[in-house]
Amino acid sequence: MEFLAALERAIGAGLVQTGEAIAARHHTDWSGAPPVVPLALVRPRSTEEVAAVLRVCGDHRVAVVPQGGLTGLAGAAVPRADAIALSLDRMNAIESVDLAAATITVQAGATLQAVQEAAAAHGLQFGVDLGARGSCQIGGNLSTNAGGNGVLQFGMMREQTLGLEVVLADGSVLPMLRPMLKNNTGYDLKQFFIGAEGTLGVITRAVLRLHPAPRARATALVALADFDASLALLGRLQSRFPGAVAAFELMWRDFIETSLVWQGLREPFDAPHPFAALVELTGSDEAALGEALEALLAEAMEAGQAVDAAIAQSRAQALAFWKIREATAELPVHMQPPINFDVSLPMAGIGRFAAACRSAFDARWPGHHSIFFGHVGDSNLHITTDGRSIGGDEAGIERVVYDQVAAFGGSVSAEHGIGLHKKPYLHASRTPAEMAAMRAIKRALDPLDLLNPGKVFDQ
Amino acid sequence: MEFLAALERAIGAGLVQTGEAIAARHHTDWSGAPPVVPLALVRPRSTEEVAAVLRVCGDHRVAVVPQGGLTGLAGAAVPRADAIALSLDRMNAIESVDLAAATITVQAGATLQAVQEAAAAHGLQFGVDLGARGSCQIGGNLSTNAGGNGVLQFGMMREQTLGLEVVLADGSVLPMLRPMLKNNTGYDLKQFFIGAEGTLGVITRAVLRLHPAPRARATALVALADFDASLALLGRLQSRFPGAVAAFELMWRDFIETSLVWQGLREPFDAPHPFAALVELTGSDEAALGEALEALLAEAMEAGQAVDAAIAQSRAQALAFWKIREATAELPVHMQPPINFDVSLPMAGIGRFAAACRSAFDARWPGHHSIFFGHVGDSNLHITTDGRSIGGDEAGIERVVYDQVAAFGGSVSAEHGIGLHKKPYLHASRTPAEMAAMRAIKRALDPLDLLNPGKVFDQ
Repeated sequence: MEFLAALERAIGAGLVQTGEAIAARHHTDWSGAPPVVPLALVRPRSTEEVAAVLRVCGDHRVAVVPQGGLTGLAGAAVPRADAIALSLDRMNAIESVDLAAATITVQAGATLQAVQEAAAAHGLQFGVDLGARGSCQIGGNLSTNAGGNGVLQFGMMREQTLGLEVVLADGSVLPMLRPMLKNNTGYDLKQFFIGAEGTLGVITRAVLRLHPAPRARATALVALADFDASLALLGRLQSRFPGAVAAFELMWRDFIETSLVWQGLREPFDAPHPFAALVELTGSDEAALGEALEALLAEAMEAGQAVDAAIAQSRAQALAFWKIREATAELPVHMQPPINFDVSLPMAGIGRFAAACRSAFDARWPGHHSIFFGHVGDSNLHITTDGRSIGGDEAGIERVVYDQVAAFGGSVSAEHGIGLHKKPYLHASRTPAEMAAMRAIKRALDPLDLLNPGKVFDQ
Repeated sequence: MEFLAALERAIGAGLVQTGEAIAARHHTDWSGAPPVVPLALVRPRSTEEVAAVLRVCGDHRVAVVPQGGLTGLAGAAVPRADAIALSLDRMNAIESVDLAAATITVQAGATLQAVQEAAAAHGLQFGVDLGARGSCQIGGNLSTNAGGNGVLQFGMMREQTLGLEVVLADGSVLPMLRPMLKNNTGYDLKQFFIGAEGTLGVITRAVLRLHPAPRARATALVALADFDASLALLGRLQSRFPGAVAAFELMWRDFIETSLVWQGLREPFDAPHPFAALVELTGSDEAALGEALEALLAEAMEAGQAVDAAIAQSRAQALAFWKIREATAELPVHMQPPINFDVSLPMAGIGRFAAACRSAFDARWPGHHSIFFGHVGDSNLHITTDGRSIGGDEAGIERVVYDQVAAFGGSVSAEHGIGLHKKPYLHASRTPAEMAAMRAIKRALDPLDLLNPGKVFDQ
C-alpha cells in the first residue's frame, strides 16, 4: 500500500505497526466503545516526525486519530479502521523545570504522574490531579481540558497552560512555547487547541505552571442537612480561607450508603445525614490550620449550616475520610455496567437538579440504584446508575438527565469532553449558531477534516 | 446615504450620529493616535440592536470599529473614516450578582469600577484592577485580555471569565453565558474572543468570577541588591503564602529616584538601593499576617536576599509605599512624550534583558531618561523613556527594545495588546505559521474583514 510505504519512508519502518502487531490497548479507550483496529499505529519520537506523519496523511487524504493514555471516558481516542492512530507515548520526556518561573516543559506523552513527581522533586506541585494519573498523558489532559481534584484551587488544565507546541493538519508547527503568564500578541492560539479533543491539531509539547507544595493540610468530614447548607458552608470556607480550599466534595446519602456497604466501612457519624462534605484546606502551619478549621466548623454548626463534623487528627484519618469518596474506583466491580454522568450546572440549582433527576428515575425505574456526588465547588455533579437496575435502558436515562441539563441551563460535559459518547447530546448545551462557529473554526484549521474526524461533532 | 438610512431604519435615528455630532472623545483613544472622525457613531442599547447594526453593515460592506472606554494604549479602538464606530457605552448594566456561585453578569459597557463596586457591595472582589478603572469598560478589558494589579493572585481578564455573549460579523449571536467553571462541550468558543481586540466579534455581555474580599492586608517595601534577589524573595513569599501574594511590584533605582523627585518624596530607606519591591499579602487576620511577613523578611535578610525592609504599620503608610509605585500617573506631565514599553519575558531573564536595553540606550542616547519597573511576578516589565531625552527617536528605541525581546524569547505586548501601535513588531513574537493560523481564524469568523479591520494584523 503506497500510503504505508510513504509513511515508512518519512519516519522509518520501526515506528509504523499494522494489523496484529498493534497492541490491543490501542483499539479503544476507557469509554467502553467497541474496539477497532486502526489502519496503522504510528509512534513518532519527535515533533518533526509528527509533522512528517501529518504531511504524508494529508498527501494521501488519510485521517489521524491522536492517542494519549487512552483513559478518556468519552471516546475521543477510539480509532477508526480507515485512519491511523497516532500515539504520542514515545514523546514522554520531562524536558525542564524552571524554578524561578515555577514552570515545567514536557512532551505530550509524559504521564500526569510523571509531571506531578517532577514537580514534587523540586518542592512544587502540579495543579491537576485525577484518578488515572499513572496512565493518562499530558497531551490527553490538554486535549480534554481535564479537571479532577484540584480545580477549586487551581482551575482546569487550561489554567495550568502557559505554552503549547502544536502540529496542524498540514504539518506546520505552531511553536507557542513562550513561558510568560502575560502575552497579549494577537489571538491566544493555544486556547483553541485546549479541549478540542485532537480535532484541530496535535499537541506535542507544553509549558505548564507549577505551584508551591503546601506545608500543611487539614481535612474534615461535615454532615449537612440539605444542599443549600453545602453552598453556605463552602462560601464560609472560601471567605475565611481564600485560595486555600483545596477540596469540597459533596456526597448525597445514596452515595455514602453505597460506599459504606461496598467497602465494609462504618458510618462516620453517630447518625446518618442527608449529605456529607469532604473538605480539605492547605496552609503553612498544621496546628494553626486545624484550629482555624475547628473554629469555623463550630461557627457553621451554630449558624445551622452544619449538623455534625469531624476533623482528621492524622493523615491516616484523613485518608479514611477520602476512602468514602473514593468508592468510585469500585464502580466497575459493583455495577453492571455503571452508567456515568458528568454534568455541570449553575451552582444554586444543583440541589434541585439532583432532586428532579431522582424523581424522574424513581417514577420510571422503581428500585433503581443511583448515586449522586460531585465537585460541587466547581459546579460539577456526577451521577452513576447501575445499568441492571434500570433494565439496561442507557439511552432512556441519558435522555432524562440531558433533558434536565437543558432545562437547568447546564452542560452535558463538565470535565470528560464530548468525544463519540456525548455527540448526540451536544445540542443540549450548544446553540445552532455556536455549532456553526465551531464548524467554521474546524474548516479553517483542518479543511480536509483529517484530524480526529467524527469526534465532538460531524463536519 | 442609503447605508445610514438603513442603519436608522434598523435601530432608530437617535442612536446614529455623524460628523460634528460625534463627541471628540470617540475620535481616538489613549494611545495618542491621530484623531479620525468615523463615518458614524452608533450607540446601541441591546444585543439585538448590536446584531441589527452588524447585519446592516454586512449588507453594505461597511466596517465596524468597536469602542469601549477608549483607554487602550495600543490603538485598537481608533476609528476609521470609512467605518462606523460602535460604542457599547449605553449597554452598561450590572445585570445580576449570584452569591452562591460568586459570579456577576454584566453588559459590555459597564466600567471596571462599576463591577468592582457591585462586587464590594456583596463582600466580594473582582480580580482585575488597573489605573483606568473609572473609564475603561468590561468589553474592552475582555477584548484586550487586560492585566493590571491583580494578575499574580487572580490571573488576567481571561481567568475571570466564565461566559460571554458575542455578536459575530454576520449578526448571529453566540450566547455562551453558562456560568459554570467546568464546561467541556466542544471548542471553548469564548476563549477566541478574549484578547482578539474586536476583530472576531463584538462582546455584548459577560459572566465573570468574583472572589471573597480579603479581611486583612500586609504591605512592605523591601530593598534588594540585585534582580536575582527579587526572584528569590518572590519564591519565598509564594511558598510561605500560597495564593496570598497580591502584589510584587519591582522598581529599578532609576524608577525610584524619578518617582521621589517628581513627587517630592523622601528616600524610603537610610540609603539608596539598586532595587525595591513593593509586596502586598492578603489574609484573614491583620496582626498574624503582619507578624508572619516580618518573620519571613527577617529570614530573607539573613539569607542575603533582602538588604532592608519596612512593613507598613497603617493603611496610610501602605498608601505611602504605593505612592512611590504610582509615579506612573505623572508620566504624561513630566515626559514629552513618554515612550512606553509593555513587554514580558521568561522570568529568569528579566534582569539581563533590562541591563541589555539600558546598555544599548546608554550607547546610543547618552543622558537619556528611562525608568524600569514592572509586575515582575507576572513576567511583565515596563520601560518608559522620555522622548525628548532621545531626540524623539521613537522608532529607533522601539527597534532596540523589540530586537532584545526577540533575542530573549519574550513578548512585545504583555498586557496592552497589539492594536495599531505594535503591529509592526508582532513578528518579533509570532512565527509565520502562527500568523497564518490567526489569519485563517479571522477569515473563518469574519470573511468580509468588517470587524476592526487593520487592527492586530492585516488580512
